[in-house]
Amino acid sequence: MIIVMEQNATKEQMDRVTKYIKDHGMKSYVHKGDLLNVIAVIGNEININPENIAALDGVNTVKKIQEPYKLVSRITHPEDTVITFPNGVKIGGDEKPVLMVGPCSVEKDYEGLIKVARAAKEMGCPFLRGGAFKPRTSPYDFQGLEEKGLQYLAQAREETGLLVVTEVMDTMDISLLCKYADVLQVGARNMQNFKLLKALGRINKPVMIKRGPAATIKEFLLAAEYVVSNGNPNVILCERGVKSFDSQFSRNVLDIAAVPIIRKVSHLPIIVDPSHGTGKRYLIEPMGKAALIAGAHGLMFEVHHDPDNAMCDGAQSLNIEQFKQVTRVFNKLIGRIDYDNKNNKNNKKND
Amino acid sequence: MIIVMEQNATKEQMDRVTKYIKDHGMKSYVHKGDLLNVIAVIGNEININPENIAALDGVNTVKKIQEPYKLVSRITHPEDTVITFPNGVKIGGDEKPVLMVGPCSVEKDYEGLIKVARAAKEMGCPFLRGGAFKPRTSPYDFQGLEEKGLQYLAQAREETGLLVVTEVMDTMDISLLCKYADVLQVGARNMQNFKLLKALGRINKPVMIKRGPAATIKEFLLAAEYVVSNGNPNVILCERGVKSFDSQFSRNVLDIAAVPIIRKVSHLPIIVDPSHGTGKRYLIEPMGKAALIAGAHGLMFEVHHDPDNAMCDGAQSLNIEQFKQVTRVFNKLIGRIDYDNKNNKNNKKND
Amino acid sequence: MIIVMEQNATKEQMDRVTKYIKDHGMKSYVHKGDLLNVIAVIGNEININPENIAALDGVNTVKKIQEPYKLVSRITHPEDTVITFPNGVKIGGDEKPVLMVGPCSVEKDYEGLIKVARAAKEMGCPFLRGGAFKPRTSPYDFQGLEEKGLQYLAQAREETGLLVVTEVMDTMDISLLCKYADVLQVGARNMQNFKLLKALGRINKPVMIKRGPAATIKEFLLAAEYVVSNGNPNVILCERGVKSFDSQFSRNVLDIAAVPIIRKVSHLPIIVDPSHGTGKRYLIEPMGKAALIAGAHGLMFEVHHDPDNAMCDGAQSLNIEQFKQVTRVFNKLIGRIDYDNKNNKNNKKND
Amino acid sequence: MIIVMEQNATKEQMDRVTKYIKDHGMKSYVHKGDLLNVIAVIGNEININPENIAALDGVNTVKKIQEPYKLVSRITHPEDTVITFPNGVKIGGDEKPVLMVGPCSVEKDYEGLIKVARAAKEMGCPFLRGGAFKPRTSPYDFQGLEEKGLQYLAQAREETGLLVVTEVMDTMDISLLCKYADVLQVGARNMQNFKLLKALGRINKPVMIKRGPAATIKEFLLAAEYVVSNGNPNVILCERGVKSFDSQFSRNVLDIAAVPIIRKVSHLPIIVDPSHGTGKRYLIEPMGKAALIAGAHGLMFEVHHDPDNAMCDGAQSLNIEQFKQVTRVFNKLIGRIDYDNKNNKNNKKND
Repeated sequence: MIIVMEQNATKEQMDRVTKYIKDHGMKSYVHKGDLLNVIAVIGNEININPENIAALDGVNTVKKIQEPYKLVSRITHPEDTVITFPNGVKIGGDEKPVLMVGPCSVEKDYEGLIKVARAAKEMGCPFLRGGAFKPRTSPYDFQGLEEKGLQYLAQAREETGLLVVTEVMDTMDISLLCKYADVLQVGARNMQNFKLLKALGRINKPVMIKRGPAATIKEFLLAAEYVVSNGNPNVILCERGVKSFDSQFSRNVLDIAAVPIIRKVSHLPIIVDPSHGTGKRYLIEPMGKAALIAGAHGLMFEVHHDPDNAMCDGAQSLNIEQFKQVTRVFNKLIGRIDYDNKNNKNNKKND
Repeated sequence: MIIVMEQNATKEQMDRVTKYIKDHGMKSYVHKGDLLNVIAVIGNEININPENIAALDGVNTVKKIQEPYKLVSRITHPEDTVITFPNGVKIGGDEKPVLMVGPCSVEKDYEGLIKVARAAKEMGCPFLRGGAFKPRTSPYDFQGLEEKGLQYLAQAREETGLLVVTEVMDTMDISLLCKYADVLQVGARNMQNFKLLKALGRINKPVMIKRGPAATIKEFLLAAEYVVSNGNPNVILCERGVKSFDSQFSRNVLDIAAVPIIRKVSHLPIIVDPSHGTGKRYLIEPMGKAALIAGAHGLMFEVHHDPDNAMCDGAQSLNIEQFKQVTRVFNKLIGRIDYDNKNNKNNKKND
Repeated sequence: MIIVMEQNATKEQMDRVTKYIKDHGMKSYVHKGDLLNVIAVIGNEININPENIAALDGVNTVKKIQEPYKLVSRITHPEDTVITFPNGVKIGGDEKPVLMVGPCSVEKDYEGLIKVARAAKEMGCPFLRGGAFKPRTSPYDFQGLEEKGLQYLAQAREETGLLVVTEVMDTMDISLLCKYADVLQVGARNMQNFKLLKALGRINKPVMIKRGPAATIKEFLLAAEYVVSNGNPNVILCERGVKSFDSQFSRNVLDIAAVPIIRKVSHLPIIVDPSHGTGKRYLIEPMGKAALIAGAHGLMFEVHHDPDNAMCDGAQSLNIEQFKQVTRVFNKLIGRIDYDNKNNKNNKKND
Repeated sequence: MIIVMEQNATKEQMDRVTKYIKDHGMKSYVHKGDLLNVIAVIGNEININPENIAALDGVNTVKKIQEPYKLVSRITHPEDTVITFPNGVKIGGDEKPVLMVGPCSVEKDYEGLIKVARAAKEMGCPFLRGGAFKPRTSPYDFQGLEEKGLQYLAQAREETGLLVVTEVMDTMDISLLCKYADVLQVGARNMQNFKLLKALGRINKPVMIKRGPAATIKEFLLAAEYVVSNGNPNVILCERGVKSFDSQFSRNVLDIAAVPIIRKVSHLPIIVDPSHGTGKRYLIEPMGKAALIAGAHGLMFEVHHDPDNAMCDGAQSLNIEQFKQVTRVFNKLIGRIDYDNKNNKNNKKND
């Protein structure tokens, strides 16, 4: 931690700061500059609140050096986290990227859902996604089928063997969802619902956290830290676009750079959702390819058997025909990436 | 609703759109322009999902005309909502703006809390705020005293007669909080926790919703619509700053214009939090004055008996001495605003 | 400057960094932490480029401590800058806030302009604003009357004695503008047109710089530093709103907190433009009052004799009637602020 | 254009609006809704200012339907623009993507520049970039070698045959730059320097416009419209990241989706700059690949013979070794994209 003092800070103010640091078990070094004085603090920053130091008289600014996340950081855990599902599917590290597809929300028509699930299986996608509980900005929009939707998802899994990803909106629904789902998803607007994150730290199913619409990468990683620090190491991160000053052509700005950045600073798997990230069907293919080639561990996107009559997000869903066409492109690219990864590894071994 | 067709949309695509509109019980009018064709839709837009229309072939864009909120809008409810508490305190409309003060979080030291409460009472502030459940970005930060904190708040209310405002983070805690609090606050990061909003629609205590760090005014009003449409008309809105590209000097950008805008489009009370809105103690006074003169129905700001040792948000809290000084300024300004309001009303009557 | 090394940085990498610092005439202190090593650099940071240090192997991040602006900072120039015009009008410091009013652009109809100028004079506003060269987002919008417009402004000044504020868009026009204007305004979109800023540093007329739509306060102050460091100390800053994710109700977010922040860190005068800051006529009054009470040295807003037929920005312009009404409110508030300022000073003297 | 009237708008206000539309040579259709009345306007919107309509009494909002850009739009110009240079290099449409590389700024050491140029030639990059006039946020940073730098660039071109891309900052420098450069670049902070854009419309060299740090795609296209409507059809667009609330790990958010969006709505070539877009050397490769696979017509990135001692942007520059390694990856990917493009075309022909 670095403390910059006000230019006119008195010796008493300076002493007060160094005493405060000492009282909290850390060491301080004072540097007198031409214009400003600086105090460097050495020790475990996680135990001290920078805001309290900032509140001391004579302090101009406090800059933290250590990141506040620990368990999700590569510094303390250099090896990639690879999550292995009971049926052998893996996500993370150098594993082949995976596709998660399905409708935004599960609807009354089971036949529609199973059509999508069968197409997903045919194309080699290991995950079926679909919302039973739907967070909607307006109270007048469709809120989801709830438990009925979960039953449909489980039935589709029964038939196809796909793994089920579905959203949890409230701590009270966690045990119900654990009965039906293989991955519990935290929606973007709930990314900082800390009670929910803590509770998800106590289950033994993987959790997928979507990045909040205005969450920094640090806040995103701290949301994961809530889950991991409460006992559940199996967290998947999902970039889905951030808000910007321009939403005319794309609902959000899909932050593709978050993929290589997160792979550098964290060991957790990171996937990308080009459907929510753009809100436009025609952008799923180019942005999905961009995410994969930048290193994403997977893609999640929306497929509906009849997008024109979808209860939600029709404009950003592919129909089954389009899905197959786009997935052929993705699968080809995934094949190349996998081939290159393996070749690179062999080359490294031979070095 | 206005539907703009692609330039090269076919007659069949156009017919499909107008049929879709008719099937949903609305009327359409087609206008052929020089370059683009436009379909105007007349009827209750709340029943139709623009995304489904956007997903039809040949459609370029869909623009909604009606706002999706209804109950919180002045169009359907022109009179101001004024909330009256059992002890006669009022908030909203042309009532005198109110001050809500107290520490960010309730801490172990009850003596500190009661000192602040006594000072608040002395200065004429009707509300004591303080968090018992604390949402914190990092899992390693202080998470609140929980029920113990609520008991302290209730005890302080007992002694001073102040009304208690405190945050609810989870549906499971609502009944507990209703026992202790006069106003249940929804934190900024939970503004779109829709399960929580729905559940708060079913209680009979006023709810205060803080604007999400990247919530548009429309999303903010829709969060209130969730509570009101579920049965609870007593909602207070709280502007607390939005995220921007610049956080060097101020944690957030306090959007003061939200005050006159919301007073124009909605009948609900709107207050401002200059502590969270700026993150800096010295900005509480100028920004509090700015909010009041722009029409805020109240201010909420942080006061701590010993900010240097506060468990959270010390840098943006006033100590008791500073609190009194700033509140004298606010009270003087509130007096003038109230005087001007009354004078204007009398003038209007005499017109 | 604080340099945080990568966790696995080698001794050689560390030595390279300290050597680099020494070679540039500064001192370094190395602190070894539990997880990370930190190098503190003491000396004049303005002479060293942090990016070059960040580019050295083994360096994680570089944090500057000194701000890169110097001449506009209160640290090196504690006294307020007060600009005095030949006719005795003053702006800055504790002087009475001033109003700058007029149409967005000067139009063919001189009668319209002079009507506004006469009303401004009548209401005690010392400045007439109006654009002769207009920056417009679209090439198909009205681009200004150019020199003809300047002549009209000069003619209106002749009759009323008001000072003229008008925009300069290009270095080639500076000498022309100096003939006609009392203050040369740099538009928001030109805030980082550094050639223009440098050239304006070499004239002897005051320059008003509008904040760029996405400029941080630091970038805003650095734009002023360009002018001042090239020889012209008379710079007025103008906050006019920043872009955000929400432009439904207000074109920009007017960052009122920029006023007290800039008054704290800089000695330059800072005014506010509630017309461009919001884009809505009805927001001029509340936001103008908010700016004044937060400490603005003046307001600039748009008045047009016939807003319905204005060539630009009609929706955010007041007509003459509305202008008088709003200005009465502003003048009353300015009177109170001036009274309070003087009283506070007297109190301080008596302390 | 669609005009939404206030709920309580009178018949007189409505009539005034329709008269205004008629007076401007357009037709209007009034639709009475349940809650709101709507007026649809048919005709060429470019001739009418929506702000003036918004300023009429009784008008709630005005929504434009036609985009304000015309010449750069695919609607009026469906074929891709392909720019062909005298030496046969092409950019745009389905041509092979091109690489533009070189140092941020040209420095005193010509030997350094020519080393980069030779490496670029060796790797098959057709463009050498380098700044002679440098826009810098701080007046104390290196401002460029000016004409000397241009001479160096021309000399390097002489030796290698590479095309030269360099930045123009001021209308006064245009003729000088035309003597030395093959492409004149408009920097991000000058994207709305309209005088400069107009002047560049009158030259016969290609112009490359970098997207402003907070420019919407519409504003970006309008900047190009300024150049094209003034007579110069050869404009290259360059996405280089936009400002966001998070700059901890990446200086800007590189908006990769801008590539497929712009290729859909405009016929102009669009390239991507992953150096400025991220500010980090290690992100050039993944983000460059993402841009190429999403359809970029080229990449521009920074290469310096000695990044540790670069006068600017060292942290985001590759050294020559790294450059070759990354370019090998890019060239391989470009080869595949080109192969796929040609195959797809042949398939289409065979359909």
